[in-house]
Amino acid sequence: MSGKHTELARLLAPIESSMARMREVLSSQMTETSPAVRDMTDHVGRFQGKQLRAALVLLAGEATKNSTDEHPTVAAIVEMIHLATLVHDDILDGAEVRRRVACVNQRWDNQTAVLLGDFLYARAFALSTVLSSRLCSRLLAETTRKICVGEIEQAASRYDFEMSEDRYEWIAGAKTANLYAAACELGARYPGGNDELGTLMHAFGWEVGLAFQIVDDCLDLTSTDDELGKSAGTDAEDGKITLPVLYTYRRGDDRLRAKIRDVYTLPGLEDRAKALREECSIGEGVAYATQRAEGLVARAMARVRTLDEGPAREALERLGTFVLSRRF
Amino acid sequence: MSGKHTELARLLAPIESSMARMREVLSSQMTETSPAVRDMTDHVGRFQGKQLRAALVLLAGEATKNSTDEHPTVAAIVEMIHLATLVHDDILDGAEVRRRVACVNQRWDNQTAVLLGDFLYARAFALSTVLSSRLCSRLLAETTRKICVGEIEQAASRYDFEMSEDRYEWIAGAKTANLYAAACELGARYPGGNDELGTLMHAFGWEVGLAFQIVDDCLDLTSTDDELGKSAGTDAEDGKITLPVLYTYRRGDDRLRAKIRDVYTLPGLEDRAKALREECSIGEGVAYATQRAEGLVARAMARVRTLDEGPAREALERLGTFVLSRRF
Repeated sequence: MSGKHTELARLLAPIESSMARMREVLSSQMTETSPAVRDMTDHVGRFQGKQLRAALVLLAGEATKNSTDEHPTVAAIVEMIHLATLVHDDILDGAEVRRRVACVNQRWDNQTAVLLGDFLYARAFALSTVLSSRLCSRLLAETTRKICVGEIEQAASRYDFEMSEDRYEWIAGAKTANLYAAACELGARYPGGNDELGTLMHAFGWEVGLAFQIVDDCLDLTSTDDELGKSAGTDAEDGKITLPVLYTYRRGDDRLRAKIRDVYTLPGLEDRAKALREECSIGEGVAYATQRAEGLVARAMARVRTLDEGPAREALERLGTFVLSRRF
Repeated sequence: MSGKHTELARLLAPIESSMARMREVLSSQMTETSPAVRDMTDHVGRFQGKQLRAALVLLAGEATKNSTDEHPTVAAIVEMIHLATLVHDDILDGAEVRRRVACVNQRWDNQTAVLLGDFLYARAFALSTVLSSRLCSRLLAETTRKICVGEIEQAASRYDFEMSEDRYEWIAGAKTANLYAAACELGARYPGGNDELGTLMHAFGWEVGLAFQIVDDCLDLTSTDDELGKSAGTDAEDGKITLPVLYTYRRGDDRLRAKIRDVYTLPGLEDRAKALREECSIGEGVAYATQRAEGLVARAMARVRTLDEGPAREALERLGTFVLSRRF
């Protein structure tokens, strides 16, 4: 395990055994008798990633004293939906590298990536329908729909430098915070009842997820591919106007605004993120966005501190810090 | 309504009012407050198509005396899943025209088509989770998974002229017959119980669906874009080896086999389907495939004739004839 993963592993210690169970479920779901499918799922299995969303299901379950035998399965389902969105996202973004493993759509073609994502969604929903409660199916189908709406609205807002900050947060929330919120809510509520804690943990997940996305948007501007483990600078390449850029643009004079538009749109520009850093004083925007992420995490922390003390609650608090300090 | 749709409309007369209800549900599901999404779903709504799968849910329900108030919703869900597969299929095939309405991925881009398909899947699953019984969610999630596996295996079998006929039927069944079978089974079984009739109608749907796919494969070779209302000749373009080609190849001598391989693979060839028709004596293969489809429909007919007589049973029988005689 690389050094930067150590902090995360320490953080997840209170749910180590249920995370292991979650990974077993995940890997059993990836096993498919069809050889062509197996070849692909083997490949996706190597993505792994931080599995933060699965961890949130389990931590929220522990912290609200609501853990059941089915929680690791619920967590695996959440993670599969996340994997499906990643696989389809790679088609969307034309991203070149995802966590240092060639993207599905680079090793195969777009067709295969579409089908593999569909397969993962279907597997996730199929698994959810055999759980003892329907809550997981209901919440995650609705969440998936909202994620799609967010992604579609994001695509419709490319190169929109006049976008309001509220709209940016609505989109970032819809495409990212929704699944964090659903993961936390399911942890606290599954198989049913427990509505008050469900609402509390939903709000916690939303804030942490939105902060995560804002940090992600900052890292895309400020990191290298190597630090990130995936292509950096893809947002500017794809015309996505993120919070740091939005702030810088809004506060800029006509000259700076024209420069930012040029950096986004001039054909053939080598490294748009670098140009934003070096020629568009993006630093202030990054500082502003970081402050917003910190504010969100502070609110999330206040919520979680209303829960009884214990290792899971502590882990949720440290997760907030992790989201803010992460470099990958 | 164009002349060729009249026979179909007559056939669906026994379920006219529940088909109307199904269309209401479908159109309410396509309504979305997000403007970018609404723009897309408006467009997809115009696809319409034959809605055969929805009709099968309703006819199977009537013919087995199992209709409920929820059947039109189940039928709409099946149709939405079908629409989602069509939208994603258009990415896969690079098909240029689908039912004379520009494909989603021509009017927008691949990214939008992926998201719209995902949205339709999610909407379908979300709707299924609020039905009174879980049977619909369970059966359709599993069916969607199988469809994906079929499509993935088909992609892996492109240009495989040595494929066995069993494998061809396995793939065609997985990607097409599965949804027909699920539609008929749901009609007969939803909300639960009624297992024997469910099994009977599943088998009926499988045979009719496989026949439909075989006829589809023949039409792709023998029709014009105009007759079909979608691009013809795409299978050869995409390297899909269908039953008529498989048969012709297997029975051909070395010269004919080489010719067929050339027609499939030579770069820049204008109209591969035409070349197959005119230079590769594909007629015998088409006749063989048609016979196979007729055999499947005959078996399906024998099954449905074990049900009590009535207008719905009669419609199911005529549907078999329709599948064989259709030119679109």
